[in-house]
Amino acid sequence: MCELLAMSANVPTDICFSFSGLMQRGGNTGPHKDGWGITFYEGKGCRSFKDPLPSAKSAIAKLVTEYPIKSEAVICHIRQANSGAVCLENTHPFIRQMWGKNWTYAHNGQLKDFAENLPVKLHIPIGTTDSEHAFCWLLDQLQNKFGTKEPEPIELFTYVATLSSQINVLGVFNLLLSNGDCLFAFCSNNLHWITRKAPFGEATLIDAEVKINFHHETTDKDIVTVIATQPLTQDECWHKMTSGQWQLFCLGESLASGEA
Amino acid sequence: MCELLAMSANVPTDICFSFSGLMQRGGNTGPHKDGWGITFYEGKGCRSFKDPLPSAKSAIAKLVTEYPIKSEAVICHIRQANSGAVCLENTHPFIRQMWGKNWTYAHNGQLKDFAENLPVKLHIPIGTTDSEHAFCWLLDQLQNKFGTKEPEPIELFTYVATLSSQINVLGVFNLLLSNGDCLFAFCSNNLHWITRKAPFGEATLIDAEVKINFHHETTDKDIVTVIATQPLTQDECWHKMTSGQWQLFCLGESLASGEA
Repeated sequence: MCELLAMSANVPTDICFSFSGLMQRGGNTGPHKDGWGITFYEGKGCRSFKDPLPSAKSAIAKLVTEYPIKSEAVICHIRQANSGAVCLENTHPFIRQMWGKNWTYAHNGQLKDFAENLPVKLHIPIGTTDSEHAFCWLLDQLQNKFGTKEPEPIELFTYVATLSSQINVLGVFNLLLSNGDCLFAFCSNNLHWITRKAPFGEATLIDAEVKINFHHETTDKDIVTVIATQPLTQDECWHKMTSGQWQLFCLGESLASGEA
Repeated sequence: MCELLAMSANVPTDICFSFSGLMQRGGNTGPHKDGWGITFYEGKGCRSFKDPLPSAKSAIAKLVTEYPIKSEAVICHIRQANSGAVCLENTHPFIRQMWGKNWTYAHNGQLKDFAENLPVKLHIPIGTTDSEHAFCWLLDQLQNKFGTKEPEPIELFTYVATLSSQINVLGVFNLLLSNGDCLFAFCSNNLHWITRKAPFGEATLIDAEVKINFHHETTDKDIVTVIATQPLTQDECWHKMTSGQWQLFCLGESLASGEA
């Protein structure tokens, strides 16, 4: 299995604190040593850092921890391989372009018989993972349904939720998906989220000896939502998502949610 | 204008030496301070490092200089903006997926009336540069001509050369394009290349006080081609490409070349 991390914020915010915790699970406090990746949106653009090496030992992960890239949407993944070899083309997040936007996708779980059950035509996988294959199938379905024009977010992501539950039938499908504006999460069996806003307090990482007082790092207007496979802090109250639940965030706030 | 750099090699090779020279032109020995990016292929996968900051002052560029990523194909770009604001979505290289491969593209030059003359339908630009627009048009033409199956490299890139000369009519179009297997270069007005193989000698960067003896860094079987806007070393003989010339390299060696 793998671990997922994502952020949606109403002001460009760095994710150094959360990432510092998560990266320890890539070979140190956790077994997810088969590569990692993180994608930061800045406007319509995005940039990724990826490494097939364990995040706990990666020079690139160290840079990401120390170099505060401010972003309104972030998706991160650390991998424990189950489908597909440990190599760069199998390292999440996967990014593809549609409707003049970058679409970023990360998956935790495992899917059986995905090639037969999720035929792809327009978007062809590059690597050999179940995850990328399901992403290509998802994009194919979106393009088939909505054609050349991106629909409004709630219509779009409600359909993504339906597609997610179809994929979920094949195994375990915890999903993070973003187009830079919205952050969508579908829970198969394991996802937690928290929204931080004023009054801000303190938080302590579970995986590293790091404590932060968000009051000193933020303004009263900031709203920041973090989604993770497992809670990253020990002194905050994270919402546990249930199987089949989905959440849509935009600029840190919940835009819609439901059960698929 | 901008500066381009690319590498094709028959063994995974790091580009730290050449990149050390080029990055100095991003705000130090050269005026190309409007961002930079580099894409490394490793197998079918690739990873990019991008920054809208000047490369000469970028912490990420420093990491790339010090962290030897071994690759068989690399494309790099440092930007001096003329079309499109300085932001991440306008930062080269641009990457898109087609035929189950990652296609990486970087452009040096300027194109007039590109939106009218290069209509796009299947691949929609994300940023506002002439460069990304021309890339989308190029992919549209390839998909229209070859459908769902990638042709053999020589057929494919001969057609890319024809398309490049069509784009070149709109201004200046120095192009680097790779699918990980092949590296294609089209010269509008400014490109140089060099193939290094045994017996290897010494080389000294023009832009930084760095000297290397490739004999100590390589084996006798290594073949490495480097393409750059301007030669990066002062004591080697670079081939200057002429206007309309194209070169196709695979695993460091020339596969085809011509005049479009």
